[in-house]
This record gives sequence, structure tokens and C-alpha cells, in this order.
Amino acid sequence: MNKAIARERRVAPLPSLLIEPILRAALLEDLGRAGDLTTDAIVGVEDRAKGRIVARQAGRIAGLDAATSAFTLLDANVVVEVCNGDGSDVEAGATLAIVSGSARALLTGERTMLNLLGHLCGVATATRELVTKVAGTRARIACTRKTTPGLRSLEKYAVRVGGGSSHRYGLDDAALIKDNHVIAAGGLSRAIELVRNSVGHLVKIEVEVDTLEQLQEVLAMGVDVILLDNMSLDMLREAVAITAGRAVLEASGSISAKNVAETARTGVDLISSGWITHSAPSLDIGLDFD
Amino acid sequence: MNKAIARERRVAPLPSLLIEPILRAALLEDLGRAGDLTTDAIVGVEDRAKGRIVARQAGRIAGLDAATSAFTLLDANVVVEVCNGDGSDVEAGATLAIVSGSARALLTGERTMLNLLGHLCGVATATRELVTKVAGTRARIACTRKTTPGLRSLEKYAVRVGGGSSHRYGLDDAALIKDNHVIAAGGLSRAIELVRNSVGHLVKIEVEVDTLEQLQEVLAMGVDVILLDNMSLDMLREAVAITAGRAVLEASGSISAKNVAETARTGVDLISSGWITHSAPSLDIGLDFD
Amino acid sequence: MNKAIARERRVAPLPSLLIEPILRAALLEDLGRAGDLTTDAIVGVEDRAKGRIVARQAGRIAGLDAATSAFTLLDANVVVEVCNGDGSDVEAGATLAIVSGSARALLTGERTMLNLLGHLCGVATATRELVTKVAGTRARIACTRKTTPGLRSLEKYAVRVGGGSSHRYGLDDAALIKDNHVIAAGGLSRAIELVRNSVGHLVKIEVEVDTLEQLQEVLAMGVDVILLDNMSLDMLREAVAITAGRAVLEASGSISAKNVAETARTGVDLISSGWITHSAPSLDIGLDFD
Amino acid sequence: MNKAIARERRVAPLPSLLIEPILRAALLEDLGRAGDLTTDAIVGVEDRAKGRIVARQAGRIAGLDAATSAFTLLDANVVVEVCNGDGSDVEAGATLAIVSGSARALLTGERTMLNLLGHLCGVATATRELVTKVAGTRARIACTRKTTPGLRSLEKYAVRVGGGSSHRYGLDDAALIKDNHVIAAGGLSRAIELVRNSVGHLVKIEVEVDTLEQLQEVLAMGVDVILLDNMSLDMLREAVAITAGRAVLEASGSISAKNVAETARTGVDLISSGWITHSAPSLDIGLDFD
Amino acid sequence: MNKAIARERRVAPLPSLLIEPILRAALLEDLGRAGDLTTDAIVGVEDRAKGRIVARQAGRIAGLDAATSAFTLLDANVVVEVCNGDGSDVEAGATLAIVSGSARALLTGERTMLNLLGHLCGVATATRELVTKVAGTRARIACTRKTTPGLRSLEKYAVRVGGGSSHRYGLDDAALIKDNHVIAAGGLSRAIELVRNSVGHLVKIEVEVDTLEQLQEVLAMGVDVILLDNMSLDMLREAVAITAGRAVLEASGSISAKNVAETARTGVDLISSGWITHSAPSLDIGLDFD
Amino acid sequence: MNKAIARERRVAPLPSLLIEPILRAALLEDLGRAGDLTTDAIVGVEDRAKGRIVARQAGRIAGLDAATSAFTLLDANVVVEVCNGDGSDVEAGATLAIVSGSARALLTGERTMLNLLGHLCGVATATRELVTKVAGTRARIACTRKTTPGLRSLEKYAVRVGGGSSHRYGLDDAALIKDNHVIAAGGLSRAIELVRNSVGHLVKIEVEVDTLEQLQEVLAMGVDVILLDNMSLDMLREAVAITAGRAVLEASGSISAKNVAETARTGVDLISSGWITHSAPSLDIGLDFD
Repeated sequence: MNKAIARERRVAPLPSLLIEPILRAALLEDLGRAGDLTTDAIVGVEDRAKGRIVARQAGRIAGLDAATSAFTLLDANVVVEVCNGDGSDVEAGATLAIVSGSARALLTGERTMLNLLGHLCGVATATRELVTKVAGTRARIACTRKTTPGLRSLEKYAVRVGGGSSHRYGLDDAALIKDNHVIAAGGLSRAIELVRNSVGHLVKIEVEVDTLEQLQEVLAMGVDVILLDNMSLDMLREAVAITAGRAVLEASGSISAKNVAETARTGVDLISSGWITHSAPSLDIGLDFD
Repeated sequence: MNKAIARERRVAPLPSLLIEPILRAALLEDLGRAGDLTTDAIVGVEDRAKGRIVARQAGRIAGLDAATSAFTLLDANVVVEVCNGDGSDVEAGATLAIVSGSARALLTGERTMLNLLGHLCGVATATRELVTKVAGTRARIACTRKTTPGLRSLEKYAVRVGGGSSHRYGLDDAALIKDNHVIAAGGLSRAIELVRNSVGHLVKIEVEVDTLEQLQEVLAMGVDVILLDNMSLDMLREAVAITAGRAVLEASGSISAKNVAETARTGVDLISSGWITHSAPSLDIGLDFD
Repeated sequence: MNKAIARERRVAPLPSLLIEPILRAALLEDLGRAGDLTTDAIVGVEDRAKGRIVARQAGRIAGLDAATSAFTLLDANVVVEVCNGDGSDVEAGATLAIVSGSARALLTGERTMLNLLGHLCGVATATRELVTKVAGTRARIACTRKTTPGLRSLEKYAVRVGGGSSHRYGLDDAALIKDNHVIAAGGLSRAIELVRNSVGHLVKIEVEVDTLEQLQEVLAMGVDVILLDNMSLDMLREAVAITAGRAVLEASGSISAKNVAETARTGVDLISSGWITHSAPSLDIGLDFD
Repeated sequence: MNKAIARERRVAPLPSLLIEPILRAALLEDLGRAGDLTTDAIVGVEDRAKGRIVARQAGRIAGLDAATSAFTLLDANVVVEVCNGDGSDVEAGATLAIVSGSARALLTGERTMLNLLGHLCGVATATRELVTKVAGTRARIACTRKTTPGLRSLEKYAVRVGGGSSHRYGLDDAALIKDNHVIAAGGLSRAIELVRNSVGHLVKIEVEVDTLEQLQEVLAMGVDVILLDNMSLDMLREAVAITAGRAVLEASGSISAKNVAETARTGVDLISSGWITHSAPSLDIGLDFD
Repeated sequence: MNKAIARERRVAPLPSLLIEPILRAALLEDLGRAGDLTTDAIVGVEDRAKGRIVARQAGRIAGLDAATSAFTLLDANVVVEVCNGDGSDVEAGATLAIVSGSARALLTGERTMLNLLGHLCGVATATRELVTKVAGTRARIACTRKTTPGLRSLEKYAVRVGGGSSHRYGLDDAALIKDNHVIAAGGLSRAIELVRNSVGHLVKIEVEVDTLEQLQEVLAMGVDVILLDNMSLDMLREAVAITAGRAVLEASGSISAKNVAETARTGVDLISSGWITHSAPSLDIGLDFD
Repeated sequence: MNKAIARERRVAPLPSLLIEPILRAALLEDLGRAGDLTTDAIVGVEDRAKGRIVARQAGRIAGLDAATSAFTLLDANVVVEVCNGDGSDVEAGATLAIVSGSARALLTGERTMLNLLGHLCGVATATRELVTKVAGTRARIACTRKTTPGLRSLEKYAVRVGGGSSHRYGLDDAALIKDNHVIAAGGLSRAIELVRNSVGHLVKIEVEVDTLEQLQEVLAMGVDVILLDNMSLDMLREAVAITAGRAVLEASGSISAKNVAETARTGVDLISSGWITHSAPSLDIGLDFD
């Protein structure tokens, strides 16, 4: 196991109390009212099977424990033996886990497991792609709140497994003052003041700016993080120079694998991307029965 | 409104009883325990605002009513005026709807609305892309059970709005006999027989085959639909000739925008794609306040 | 074990994910806010008991595993030893299962267990009664959507254990065009055409007809199943002759134990009955403590 | 409106907070994942319809408001005009209510509405049958905890609309000492003492007895209600004489329409019946569209 | 263990089916979307720890099993060894339980466990304080419906562990006629008559009176319990004399530790207090890691 | 309206999506299975009533909108006219709101409304008491995670209405390194380093210290907030001097109304109190019908 894996492996798994309701709902969505018509007609209650979860594409693994709980929710005696768990970088053909137990549980849970696992590995792999491209710079890749309804905790977990960094988990764990807030408040400074007077001592404040003048105004107010929205590389560089470490700088807007490296080289601290959560293609994974 | 739009517009909206729990959960996921810290600090309870939901990319619209219910769940008095509703094909810059009412509801619900709308328009647009490529053939584009956990009903709806066709909604509304079922049953014919004896008179039976020999065996059994898995174009053509209309033929496996047209020209009835639901990139949509 | 039992025993049990929420809700409905006042006052936490679930009437058993999970939900260590499980035909006095473990769990869960078991055995027994009467004909007994709110999956399971056949599980797994749909569409053929253009390739279409003229019109359209509603025996026989195997024929309307045999002898494929789910009397079952 | 109706009409409706979750779940059970395939294909979103809910059998009406909320949950603008509401005694052919509004809502909600209404009217009608037979005696007809899982509140409501009386709603609102409790306590008096020391001052205590000796023992202890289980008419008469008003007497066991009148004439205060909730046949009710 | 403890220890624990949803919701409320950021960053998945739950104040213990299920819900392998369980009277410094297992589960669940345990021990201790003061009189201390939303079952359980007695658990397990009901009915006797005609034979009726005239009127009607609201000690004594055992008498209104003893000496049967549930201060309890 | 009120009134109300489930559950807890037996027997469905919510004690009002939604959930037509809303300081006898509409809804919802309102006003009033005592210092009063299970959002809201400040809402919106974390990490600096490497850029880090040596070590690491646990006034003063504005200082441990002022005068920024949420006595509030 190389060092990169070792580091990401340290991302703590989400508590099962958070994951189980998602898996349970996903299984019920697939079982419907009558269950698995095909499997139930063919496979006996006592039949046993063994299968390998196999990556058909190279990628970063995330969500293996979460996804395979689809099997254990169907039958508590299914055994999952992890070969390449969360944080692993695998090649096409690699076995992620060996699952064995009730043949019905394995066949019935297969699609639910693969749907979640492919999605989360897709997020982790997309994140890793950006992370790799900014290696050697000070920039970290961060996700946004542009997540799939119902899956925010899991997608943010996958981003972290992919080497990325969290952003706000919701509207309530940090303040982010955007253009419309500024208009509503009647100015940047007034908006910051209102938020500062309202939130508690453990809430960080981030402010979105479009121009270097706004940047100056915000720096004078002393906020924690400044989001530089849709700025050119030149503007980003200038913003870094102006800021001189007085705030964390986050670049945002149309970040892709193509331009992320040069964005990183401007010296910003963070580059945030909605694409890694809302548009990452699913990683192709299958379940091969022995 | 062109004819294409007119036709897809006829896709019936999902009952709000199915949609509301999803939106409610998505809002709660974003509100967390303390609600929208930023907006609540700046915007008054009585403040009003008006915004336009604008497509920043061209695409097929799906899920507009579902997504904007994020606003009405936050404040029942928010008004949504639809300009380009589900089934519309829009260019970048088109206004999809004008929303007005409580400024807090609009600012707080914005991200939840955009997350769902971008995702469903992405699915509809990806579907339309494939549908357009097979125009003039007998082939329809169908989705699969490769959907995002919790969003199956909505994603399948978006596929239909995109011009695609539904497949099974779950394990219980049709039988689909796959390779592992065949192994478990001890043969194709035995598997079909077991399923036929088990399911009711309103359940269709589909069987997956890999070879033309299997196709012959299944045709002799008289099933409703045959899934031709990962066959070459030549094999597909031969399968169509052999079948001669005795069953519906569905081609599946590694279908992409690149190869879908030539697959369709083999004469199959359906081409199913997991990509349109699990990997369609989100459509870029924004909310511009006046 | 006779052959009849062996066959029905093969009906696959519903996944516990579907059953457990129903049992949990039923127990909570009985426990209320304070639990079992009587048992808690008298029986110690450590007390053990053993009881036999006994049929006080002859009948077909269905739902034994589901119902006894009331005990294991109260105390995971309760042991259920099945003597005459689902699909068994028992005489009055037969022991269905021996349950042992926490005396509190057994006394507290008794009524919930018996309520569900009596109901499902009642459905299975009523179904079996009709099934027995049509033996030797081609007709199968099918249930309908006339089920008890919240118990559709379990009641349909009990019908199958009783030897009956499933029908639609809901509004979404098959299309059934009824008289009001025909009126709304402006004609039978138009209704069929609209549905055919709307539903996917795995959805069967059934059409209800009242007259032989309608039957002819529907046969010409080529649907999967035709429901012959409230027809006389003579009309049914004529319908069978006209159809000549071109569609599955289902007879419906005022079917009872008295007329089911002669209805079956008309040659129809299916006879559907709401009575077996909505009006089957509960089978008398008790729990006798040793 | 005759007096009998006037009296029962006074039964207070259950709070909608208790009813709505049951109706919502029932609708979702029928809608499944895709909604009403047939209606959605044929009927437009804007189409309007009007229908009459008609009794096809004579009976006592119960649950009309609860059941028709199936329509308003689907579309808040559906109007329900009640003609013969809860507590009415109607003949076959009577119109119970006129419903008008969205044609989709009416067609989609029809079966859910009828399933609940037929069931609750069945319970009320069965109760009324027994109540009528004991007219002129002091005996009231009471229900038991032998109810359908999930429907206890509604079934008990229907019993009351039928002229019957409530019993315990669950294990926690009264104490009922049965034979197994007596065995566990080591005697009748000890069981009563344990319960009396445990429950609060607002909990009534009922004790089940099989013999007149037990009756004497229980009377000496001074409980609120005594359940005379499976006693002959002679024993019941003797029990009434012995008790002489010192406790409420409830006769129970194998009560049917045939023997309820003579049981009532023994002078007992209550006759309880499980049959009116667990085995009452559904009342035949239909929805006729104009 | 002294006798007092032995007696209260007999209070039956609530079924886990009632408790688990409360604990699960409490944990999710604390875990939020991302779980325990601090512990997850520092403590490994495999790390083990051991801690003692220690009372920092003297008091009566209640809710230990319920509260420690916070740990087992996070990790089923956490072991809880009870030292001073529910019903124990402990001094400051006493160990209530020793918990061992996953260090993450112990650290993450600590606050949820302590919040519930401190609250319920607070209720039990406050109750015990009043119970001790009325020792030697016939009066029992009862709680009311003045409970914390969502915690009624647990708080009433804690009252009973504290030596107190239950009152109504809700609006539906006993009738309590208050002043506004009397006004609505047009008089005390009319109100009692209406309720008596409406409720079943297992429902006790309590009536609130403010004057001795009302008491006389109610006694003449023969109800089960009479609530003497805000009466002076002299009035209470007179009420006891007038009643002469014909009904249970409950004194209510501004009862505190200061006046409860003299209230008890008036001869009333029950003294009810909202303070013991809605205002009892939390008992100070901590978790000390070894 | 005085200035104090004006300021606190600006605390934004929680979204109804967060509040409604709590109220709904509280009502169902009180309604049980049969609803309000007493009111339903006496009060007609059409009866109307009007009442005043009146403070029987002086205090700060919080939760009025939340609590009165108990009425509107029972009957959407109940009208609530606010007289002294959230943030008001009222004397005993003040009318908080006038409620009018269905008499059943008002009588049935009364206790649920009062339970929540009394509790939240109690929290706000207790907070205000501490806030008043520290007036003129730089110290703000903050709450903790020592809240009642299920009510965290509402209690934290009440604290803010009382003039207090929020702390963490859960384990996931800020990091708080405590003694056990330090032990697990093997030192203060190592713990801080691990957390810093793990959490995102919008998460503040707070560290608990017991000694001035630890304070120095933590200051050198540069964290956001330092919790001074159970320090004497002298130590607190010294800590303030040492820190010299390099971190926010929070004093914690055994804070009461007696010692809060002198604690504040040490110069700390925050004083946190569990008492204001877990032990604040309920404010006495009643509903007087006209």
C-alpha cells in the first residue's frame, strides 16, 4: 500500500446511523411491494453464493462499507471480506471485496450496492483527478453544496476519500455571504457586520467577491475566508498578492480538469468544484459470482 | 412550441405525494439544525424578492415543478410562473420560470432547487441526445435500474421527458432473468419455467442472452423481451433476423453517444443505457435575482 | 407433508425489510405510551415462558414468520420453532409453532402476533377454498387491489400461499383500462393506443370489457389481458370461444364460493376475487402457554 | 334523519393528525414508484370529473371523511359534498357523497378510498347488527384488541359509529388480568394486588374469570370490571346474580349474531366481540362517475 | 440495598421499541451530517476505551439503560456493566455503570447519554424529594401531562422510579373534565353525563372542582376521581371530610417542596405536581475515562 | 417597545420545516390512539372559542409561533394574534397572544402548546438572567450541547432570544478538543494537529484547557477558541492576560447566577452554561378562555 492510500484511508467512516437509513430506503425503492420476482422464483432460501466486487475501470475506492451494507441489511449473515477498501487506488480488474452468504441477498442487493458504490467511487475518482493536478501547489480541492439530494454526507465523505476537502455541509455550519446577500444588506461591509452580530463564536464567515475592490473592502473587515468568484488567472494572482495571508482564499467558478492546475498555481488556498459531486461519472463496478 | 416538445410535454407529472418527501428531506439536509445562518442574519422575514431560473446551457428541461416546490415548502406563498416547463428544449440564457415571494424562502431554497433541477435536466438532456441519434430507426432509448439511490422515480421521469422509455422500476414489476439466475436454475429453459410458474399474469418476462444459441433457446420458450447483452453489431443484426418479431429485442452494454446510432440501425427495438441516469452531467442552471 | 403443501411452501417469503416496519408499527400501536401495564406489574424481567401457537380452526397457514417476528422485535432472544409453517394445511388443534423465551415478550406480543396471523391465515384459507373449487379447470384464482390499507404486500403473499395468483400490486406495475378511462379517452381503441404509447416495454396492458362487441374491439387491438366484467356464464363461454387464446381472459364480479366452479368451467384463464382479501374471516388461532 | 342516526352521529371524528398518515401510506402503497400508469396516459392534468360514492349494499356508514381524504391528499382542490355521512343507515343505492375536481385525483384515489370506506362501513354495519339484536337489554356491544394491524384507531371509531362501545385501545390504558397472568402471579388475588400497586389512579382493572369460584374471589377484591370468559348462559345468569352490581360484567367468547341476544338477556353489562373488527365483511361501495 | 430501593426497582423498564427511536433521534441530532469531527480526527476505528458513569450529585437514578443505549446504538459491541441501576439512591461520587468498548462510540455518544440520564435522574430525584416529605400520610405524589415534548413516556417512567404515581399519559386514556369543559357543557352535571355516555367502560372519569359546592355536585354524580384545584389547606380538609371515601381526591396547584407535607396531612389521596417533570433540575452526572 | 426587545426580536425564527415535525410528534404523543376523550364528548365540531395566552410569571418570551402551531396543526383555521411575541420582556399577567377558532382545537392543543412555550420561555428567561448580570463586560453568555433530546434547535433558538449566543449545534459543526481527546492523541499539540489536518477550512477549532501551561501550549498552536475549564477567578484573569487577544476565551464550569458576574469581570469573551438549557425552570403560562 502506497503512502497516498495510507493517508486517505484515515478518513473516518461515517457512523452507520447516518448510512443505514439511506441504504434501507434504497433497498425498499428496489424491492417495491413484492420483492425480487426473478430471484425469488429461482433461488432457494437456503442457497448460498459467493461473489467478487470487481472494478471494471481504474479509480479511487469510496463507500465500500456503506454500499455492501445493502447485503447485510437483507441478511445479517452475509460476510464481506474487504480487499481494496476506501482510499485504495485500483486498476481495472481489481477485486474490492469478496461477499458470501445467502444467494438471495447477494442477487437481490446487487444493484443497490453497485449503484451507490459506483456513484461514490465516481466522486472520489473525479476528486482525485483534480487533486493530482494541483499537487505541488498550496491549493486544496474542495467540494460545494452542489450535491445530489439525500446523499450530501456520503458525497462529501467520498470527496475527502478522494483527497479533497470539505466545505460547508449545509446552510447552518458556516456563513457564506453571496452577491444577493450583499444587495439585500445594502453593501458588503454591512452584510458582514450583520452576520458577525448574529452568528456564534464557532462559525466561520466566508464572503464572495467579484472584484479586487470588493476584496479590499472585505479584507478590511477581517473575515475568515474569501471566495474569489469567476476571476481570471491574473486577477487571482493579484488577489493572492493583495491578501498576503490575511484570509483564506478560495477560487471558484468553471473549474475543470483542464484549468485547475493553472488556477492552483496562482497561489490560492482552495479551489472548489461542483462538478466532482454533481457531474462525476459513475465508476464502472460489477459483481462477479464464482 | 415545436412538435417534439408537444409530445414530451405529455409525460404526466409524478404525484406530489411521491415528490414532496424527497424535497422535504433535501431541504432539511441543507437547513441542518440552525437554518440558513447567512440569510437569516441579513434578510428580514417580510422582505420580498423576485428571481428568474435561467438555463446557462442548452438542454431539455425536466423536474421544474418538482424542484421549485423547494420554495413552496419553505413558504407556501411563493409564486412560480413557468416559462419553459418540463419537456421544453431551451438554449443557454432561456428563462425557465420566474419565482417571487419571500426573499428568505428564495435565498434559502435556491441551492436545493438548483441541485435537483440541474440533475434532472441533465438526465433528460443526456437521454434526448441518444434519442436524437436514433431518430429514423425503430429503436427506443430505455433507462435501467442504474439510478441514484432515492431518486429512481424522478430520474425515470426525466428519462421519459427526454424522450426515452421506462424499463423496470424495481425488482418487483417485471422479471429479468440474468446469467446468475440461469446458473442457479441449472439452465435457461428451467429458469424461464420457474419464473413463469411463479409470477402473475400481468408480469412480463425478459431474459438476458449472450449468444445466438441462447437466443434460439429463449425464443422457443416464448418470452416477452430478450436482452442482447454486449453483442457485436453483426450479432445484433443476426439476432434481429432470427427473432423475426417473435419477441421485443433490447440491446445493452457499453452504449454511448458514439455507438448508439449504429446499434439502432441493427433493427433492435430498444437500446438501454445506464449512463443517462448514473453519469449524466448536471445541466448548468442558475437563479438570477432582479 | 402432502404435495399441495410442498408446492405452496415454495412461495418465497417477503423480505424482512418489508415486514418489519409493519410489525413494529403494530406493536407500537398496542404498547401505546406506557407499555403492557398488566404484564409489567406481574411478570419479572427475567421470567421465562413457553407457549404453543395453535390453530383452533382448520385452515391454510400463512404469515407465521412475519407474525412471530412480533416476539423477536420485543426480545431478540425469543426462539420460534416452526411446526406447521406457511403453506401447511392444518386441522383444528394443530400446533403451528412453539415459542419460548422472555415471558414478558410472549405475553406482550401475543395479541399483535395473533392479529396478523389470524388475518393472513384467513386470507390464505379463503383463497384455498376457491382454488380447491376450480381444481381441474384451467382457471386460476387471482386477488385484486381490494386490500386492507397498509397490508397489501402481506395479503398478496397470503393469497399466493393459498394457491392464488397475484394481480397488479398497485397502479404502477401494469395498466388496467376501465370504463371510466374509456369514457375519458373517447373510446376503447383510443384508450388502448394512448396507454400503449405511454408505458414501457415491460408493462402489460389489461382492458375491462362489458360486452362481446367490446371484446372484439379489444382483441383487434392485441392487448395482453382482457377483464370480462360481470358477464353471465353464457357470455363468458362465448367470450372464451371468440378469443380463442389470443389474450388471457379474466372473469370478475361477484365471485363467491358458490359460483366460482361454474365460472371456472367456462374456460376463462383467471377468476379474480376481492372477497379473499377484503372480507375473508380471520382464522381462529391461539397461544397456549405450557 | 331518525334518532338512531342522530345519536351515533355524535361520535367525534378522529383528529386528522391520526388519520392522514394512514391515508398517505395507503396512497403511496398504491402509487408505487411510477404512479397511476393508466390514468396518467389517458387523462389530462386539467381534466375535471364528478362522481358519486354509492352504497351497493345496505349498511351503517363510517369513515367517509377519513376515506375521502384520499382525494384531497392527491389534490387539495377536490370537493367532497357529504350526503349520508358517518352514522347514517343507508339502503343499497344511496349516495354517500358527491366528489368533484381533478379527474386524475378521483380516478387515482378511487381504490384507496373504497378500500378504507368499505372496511370501516363493514365494521360499523357488523357492530350495528349485534347492537340491534341486544336492544332492550342492558348489554352494550364492545370491541376488543383483535383489530387489523395499523387500523386500530379507525376500527374502534367504526365500532362506536356502529353503536358499540370501546374497550382497551392498547396494553397501556387499562389493566386486563388474564389466565396466564394469574398463573405467573401465583393466584388471582395476588395478581390483582400486584397490578393495583403498580398502576395509577386513573387506570381501571379488569379480571378474566372462568368459574364462579373465581368470580367470588375477584368480587371480594373489588375490581372495576370482570370478564366472564366462555361461560354458558346459565353460568352467566348466576354470575349476574352473584355480582349484584358490585362490578361491571363483560361476557366474552364465541359471540355471534346467533347467540348475542340470549347472552344479552342474562343481564351482563357488556358483550365483547372480536368478530366485528377482525372478520366483518367489507361493505360493497362504488364510485360512479357522471 | 434498603427496602425503598427494592420497591422502586420493581418499576418495569419501558420496552426498547419505545426508547430506541428517541435515542436514535437524539444521536442523529448530535451527529448532524458529518459526525464527530473531533473524535474522528483523533481516535482510531479500532481503539478501545473504558469509562465510569459517575454521579457528581446525590440523587435517585432513572433511565440508565435507556441512556446507555446511546452507546450500543453507535456500536453494538459496547458493554454496559450496571453498578447502581434505576431506583438506586446514590451519593455524589457513586459509579452508576462501567462502559467499555469502541473509544469512538464512547466519546461520540457521551453527551447524548449524559443529557438523557441527567434529565431523567433529575425528574426521579425531584419526585423522591416530594415523596419523602409526604411519608406517613396516605398521599401519593403524581405527575401530570406537563412534560417535555417527545419525552412523556420516559419522564413518567422516571416519576415512577422516583416513587411517584402516574396520571393520564395523554388525552385518550382517561377523561379529565376541567373548567372550560364545564362552561362548554353548560354545567358540571351535564359535562359528566356527556362524558359518561361517550367513553368506554374502562375509562375513569376525573373532574376538577374549585369550590365545595362543586364538590358536592360531583360527588352526587359518582365519579372516580376529583381534582381539588388550588384549594386552601382548610378547604382541602373540609373536602376530605365531605367526600368520606366516596371518590379519590387529588390536590393540585402550586405544590412545592415547601408545602407538600402539610397538603398531604389534609388527608387527600394524591398530590399532583407539574414541577417534577417540567422544571426538575438535571442531576449532574459525568463520564470519567480510565 | 424598549431597545432590549428590539434587538432580540431580530433573532430569525426557525424554518417551519424544522419545527413542525416536533409539534406534530408532541400532539400525537398527547392524542394517543383515541384523541381527546373529554373534549370530544362535550364540545361540538362547529363550536368556536377564543382564549388568551397569559404569562403568570414575568419573563422573556420565546417560542410563541412554534408553540401555537400546535393549534394550527389541529385546525388550519385557528387564528393566532400575537401581542407580545418572541423577544418581549413581559410582566406577570401580560397577554402573549389571542387565539380563536375551533373550540376543540384550542382545548385539545392547549397542553402541548403550553408545555413547549413554558419550556422555551424558561430557557430564554434563564439566559436573560445571566445576560443581565454580565452587562457592561465583554462577556457573552453561551449555551452548550447540554440540551434536551429532540429539542436542541428550539432550545438554542430560545437561548439566542434570551440574549445568549450559540455554541456548537452538534459534533459536526466545530471541533472541540477535550481532555480525553488529548489523552487519546498523546498530547495537546498532537491533538490539534490531527484535527487541523482533518477538518475543512470553515470549521473552527476550540480546545479545552485546565492549566495555564496548557493555555500557553495551545496559544502557540494558534487555535480559534480556548475553553478555560473550571478555573478560579484568579486563573481566569491570568489567562486573559496571557492570551492578550490571540484567541477567543470561553469560561466554563459551575456557572450560576451567583458567580456569573464576577466571572465576566475577569475579561473572558464567553461564559458557557449548561444550566440555561438543561435545568431552567419552566415559565408559568396559561390559556384563559373568554
